[in-house]
Parts: sequence; structure tokens; C-alpha cells
Amino acid sequence: MSASSASPGRSDDRASKPTLAVVGATGAVGTVMLELLSTRQDVWGEIRLIASPRSAGRKLKVRGEEVEVIALSERAFDGVQVAMFDVPDEVSAEWAPIAAAKGAVVVDNSGAFRMDPDVPLVVPEINPEAARHRPKGIIANPNCTTLSMIVAVGALHRVFELESLVVASYQAASGAGQAGIETLYDQIAKVAGNREIGTRAGDVRQVIGDDLGPFPAPLALNVVPWAGSLRENGWTSEEMKVRNESRKILGLPNLAVSATCVRVPVVTTHSLVVHARFARRVDLAQVREILRDSPGLLLYDEPERLEFPTPADVVGTDPTWVGRLRVALDDPHALDMFVCGDNLRKGAALNTAQIAELVAAELTPQG
Amino acid sequence: MSASSASPGRSDDRASKPTLAVVGATGAVGTVMLELLSTRQDVWGEIRLIASPRSAGRKLKVRGEEVEVIALSERAFDGVQVAMFDVPDEVSAEWAPIAAAKGAVVVDNSGAFRMDPDVPLVVPEINPEAARHRPKGIIANPNCTTLSMIVAVGALHRVFELESLVVASYQAASGAGQAGIETLYDQIAKVAGNREIGTRAGDVRQVIGDDLGPFPAPLALNVVPWAGSLRENGWTSEEMKVRNESRKILGLPNLAVSATCVRVPVVTTHSLVVHARFARRVDLAQVREILRDSPGLLLYDEPERLEFPTPADVVGTDPTWVGRLRVALDDPHALDMFVCGDNLRKGAALNTAQIAELVAAELTPQG
Repeated sequence: MSASSASPGRSDDRASKPTLAVVGATGAVGTVMLELLSTRQDVWGEIRLIASPRSAGRKLKVRGEEVEVIALSERAFDGVQVAMFDVPDEVSAEWAPIAAAKGAVVVDNSGAFRMDPDVPLVVPEINPEAARHRPKGIIANPNCTTLSMIVAVGALHRVFELESLVVASYQAASGAGQAGIETLYDQIAKVAGNREIGTRAGDVRQVIGDDLGPFPAPLALNVVPWAGSLRENGWTSEEMKVRNESRKILGLPNLAVSATCVRVPVVTTHSLVVHARFARRVDLAQVREILRDSPGLLLYDEPERLEFPTPADVVGTDPTWVGRLRVALDDPHALDMFVCGDNLRKGAALNTAQIAELVAAELTPQG
Repeated sequence: MSASSASPGRSDDRASKPTLAVVGATGAVGTVMLELLSTRQDVWGEIRLIASPRSAGRKLKVRGEEVEVIALSERAFDGVQVAMFDVPDEVSAEWAPIAAAKGAVVVDNSGAFRMDPDVPLVVPEINPEAARHRPKGIIANPNCTTLSMIVAVGALHRVFELESLVVASYQAASGAGQAGIETLYDQIAKVAGNREIGTRAGDVRQVIGDDLGPFPAPLALNVVPWAGSLRENGWTSEEMKVRNESRKILGLPNLAVSATCVRVPVVTTHSLVVHARFARRVDLAQVREILRDSPGLLLYDEPERLEFPTPADVVGTDPTWVGRLRVALDDPHALDMFVCGDNLRKGAALNTAQIAELVAAELTPQG
């Protein structure tokens, strides 16, 4: 992967800028993170890449320069002012407090701290002020599914006052990491060229075999109504995250949320069908104006020209795309819409980078 | 396609049985229809196959016998007592009244008559009695998306009294006919083997090219929030069908329905995420009992064993499969679930055959 149009920062600039650590630099999200750090405005001094010991020594390109990955250790955080974590929950649970104790502000993309009352859960377009109150030195980044819709929902909430959400997701394979991507590519290769497949019960399973990767059922030519692990009363961890994180980000502890999370054979970009009910009547012209003028959103809704977002068009872009806007026919307080967001960008790396930049702005003397 | 385990009916039996015409015998639904007629209990005398003049002369197998397709004409309905139509709306609009005028009871799977107040819209598990009042001699078969969920919803309505539905669909390519199936197979072949695709905006479009078939965007490695044509205020014809047909079938003219219809890269079997709100509190044990005991349903919901319906397992089977049952966490009157039904079977050919069999039972002297 090339560092695209990045121009290497000049090192004399960098001395006055904060040191950033990227923990989990070699994963699917880490890869996108290095790409973002290479193309966004360069607010960082040193960028240190940290990963598990088995990845240590690899060289990765960031800001046009080769940087050697170092192994995760307490000393790896020496002099680090901001640390982005994209690692499994249990790794974050152990290491984020260590990095914070060493003085770094941690921006964590795992599920370990999101619901901790002493850890803010931040979406810069919605609640940037929350990032300043971080008694543990940790700021949490929301789950990718929540993030793929919350910028749109949050902008509308500000005007119409959200009361309830019914959400159905169309989640991409990369939400399950690099293994998810590889599994989907493998399965597509296996079913391709067979012009009878998908017409008899179990024929897709038979062709794909037992190699389901991180998914509980075949994903090629299929959809799988499962993401995460089982929680109480039949709800999955992913569905509970959409509910709990939306409530926390929007500051609506009693928001009614029903989410059903479904994996689809798309590589990257989550889509969501959202039915949002508000305290106020919804005015469609005003909805369009809000979505057009709010940061981080792209209104793409010209049904008469068959223009609406699809993952194939949204992947690799920064904003949350919104289309298929309709006021509910039987409820003037409810809006139906279709929302797409790149789950590795806004759903993960981009939002993390944005939070880190908020912190960098605090730390950097204004010139 | 083989006629599987059918045993040819003995012709001496057939003399006393009604003559059936299958109009549109060569299409995707027609193919499944011939398979069903070959495997279900044989209630028919002659089975006459009718199609457009360009298909006339082809021989198709039904009940283990080769039958020659004849061209659609007024005389083709001579002596026909029941005629199943699976043809475009405008062909049904013209020819169903002609067949009815010649004395046939028409079971029509197009959209031409579904909302006609003088035409019953029938799902045998829900409103079989409606089939008897048919002043025009026409009975309409619902749209495949409505049919893929309505047996489950109808069974629950009987006990809990349905008030509103929020539905998101995951619709298969074959809902757009044989052209939809071929398009998906073609596109899967084009993207297969490319282990970078789906990671950059527009790369799927580039590889697939302009051949989108009946879909407004690439379907392989994508989801497309569009089915049917544009109706008022941004709603599609497909979404309006789910609303209007659900109301008519259930006899609930004021039922609140918000449906968002999305095409997914699955060959056959529609899935739906359904959020159903009822007048009564939902009891999950009772819900399970209803779904287990009602005809036409298969309860498949063991989340602790990762058992839930997926299209790959449901395709080619008759029932509506129901899983992922959850009482809404913030509304004890609402139920969330995931429902799958083969859109060519229960969604089209099977329901048509069931309706035709209801009529055949009226016409056949009880022995």
C-alpha cells in the first residue's frame, strides 16, 4: 500500500509537536490508520508504531517514511503523549491503563472502556467537549456499527429530539478484521463460475466447506444475522453496543433502541437501515438542509436519478453517506433512511484520528 | 432440472380432476412451479403450459411427463378451470380477465390486481376464507417480499394484535427474475480472484462495468437499497407493496408500516429484519409456541448454538423460517426477529399453488 500523496513532515517542525503511538499498527484498522496519518494535516511529531512481539521488526510506511514496528512494552510508551489503541479488548484492558499511567492520553478503539462512566465515548462531530473530561486518561472510540450511523442521527437529534431508533445493519466482512476480508475473498473464489449455486438448501455450505473464518455461517451468496457474541435474552454484543453507545454519545440514557446486526458479503463499508422517531414532527426539507450542512455527512439522495449510497461507492471515503430519505407514511415524527459509512475509516481509524487530533490541539502551543 | 421423486398421475384419475393452466411456465417462478406441481399431492387433471409465442413449442417436464408449451391465446383457456399467471403486470392486466371470462378461476402473481377491492389477496395460512369471494374470478397472490414475512407476522397478530411494522429487507437477485440471477452469477465471476477489490471507492463498478442487468448498481460485493420503481415521496413500489399488501392480507387498513427494501448478493431467498409492535405485551415463551405450532413456519432460534436462519440454508424449502427472536429491550410490546423465505417458493410459486389447491378443493367432488 503506497503512502499516496503524503509529503514527509519536516523534522524541524516535529520537535514541537506531540509524539503519537499507534498500537496495533499491523491490523486492518491499523493499515487504514497509517494511510490517514499520511494524508491528513500533520499534527504529530514522532509517530511510533507498536504491535505484538511477532510483528516487531516489520517496517511500515507512514508519512512517506519507513518506520520499524516495535513490540508492545511499558518502555514503548516513553515520551508518548497520545496513544491510539486498536487491539483486542483484553489487550486494551491491560495496556491502556499502563500507557495512561506513563502520561499518554489513550484513544482506545476496543470495547474495553466504552461504557466506563469515567471514560468519555467521543464522536468529534457530536460531543467533542466530552473528550476534555477523561479522569482515567482514556478516551473511547465507539464501535464501527454505531459510528457508521451516529453522525447522521446526531445531527438530526439536535433539531428534532430523538426518541427511538430501529436499526437493521448490513455489515461488511472487514468488521471482523483482516481474517474476515480473507475469508470473504476465499469464499467468493469458491462459488464463482458455478451457475447453479444458491438454488438448493445447503449447496453454498457444501461448496465452501468448513472454512467459515470468523463467521458462524457462509458469507458468500448469503447474509448472516449475527455479529459479536451472545448477550442476555438473545441479543448479541454488537446489537447491545449500538444501543448502549448511541445512548452514551447522544447523552440520552433512556433512548429506545432495537438493533438487529446482519453480516453481508461486502468487503468494507457498513450500511444501516434506520427508522428514527423524534419528539418533533419531521420536515423533509429541513432534514435535507441539516444533512447537507453538517460536518462529516454527505447527502446523496436523488431517487428519481437512482442515486443513493451503496458500499461500493462509499468505501475509502471519509463521510457518512445518507440517502433514501423518507418521512414515515404513518408517523409524521419518524424518518426512514439508508446510511453508509466506511467501517475502517469513520467506523474506526478516522474517528480515532479525529479524537487524537482534538487532544493534540490541546497539547500543542497555539502559534 | 429433474422432476425429482414425482410419480406420474394415472390418467384415469385425472378425468375427474380440474384442468390447470400455468401461464408463464418458462420463467424463474414458472420453473419452480413445475417442480412443485411434480412433487405436491396431485389434485389436477390436465396441466396445460402456456407462455409467450416465442416459447411455444418448447417441451417442459411436469409430473414426470414432457408437456409442450402452447402460445398464450383466448383458445388456450378452453376447458381450463384454474389458471395460474406468473407474467408481467401488463400481460396479467390484459389476459387474466380473458381467462376469467372463459370460466377459469385465475390465481395471479402479478401486481395488476392485488389492491383491487374486488380481488382477494390470499395467503392460505392467514386468510383462506378470502379466496371464496372473488367477484372478478381473480385471486391475487402477494408480492414475494410481503410473502416472505407475512405468515410469521400473521400468526403473531392473531394472538398479540399487530399495531406497527418496521421492516428492512435483504432481497435476493432472483426477485428480479432469471435476468437477476444471471447478472449476479456474471458479476461474481468478474470479482472473483481479485483480493484487493471492494477496498476503494468505485473499484467494484470498474471491474463489473456497465452490465448491471436489472439492478441500478453493482450487486456483487455490494448491497443496493432499491427494488421496483419510484413512487411518491421517495418510497419505492416494492416498499409500498409491503405496506399495502400487509394491510389487506391482515385486514388492518390502518396498520403502520415502514419498509426499506434492499437487494443483496444472494441468489434466492429473501430475508427480513422485522420490528413488530403489538397492542398486547409480548411473551417470548408464547411467541415460540405460536411459531412452532403454526402451519408454514419453522422456528429456528437457538442463539447459544449459533442457530438462526440464513438464505443459504432456507433456499429450496417451503416454510418461512424465523429466528433471532428478541423482545425489544425498551418496549415490552415489540418483538425483533429475522425471517427468511424462499422468494420463488412461498414468495411466489408455492403460495400460488396453495391458493389454486384451495380452489381445486371447491371444484372437486368430495369422495
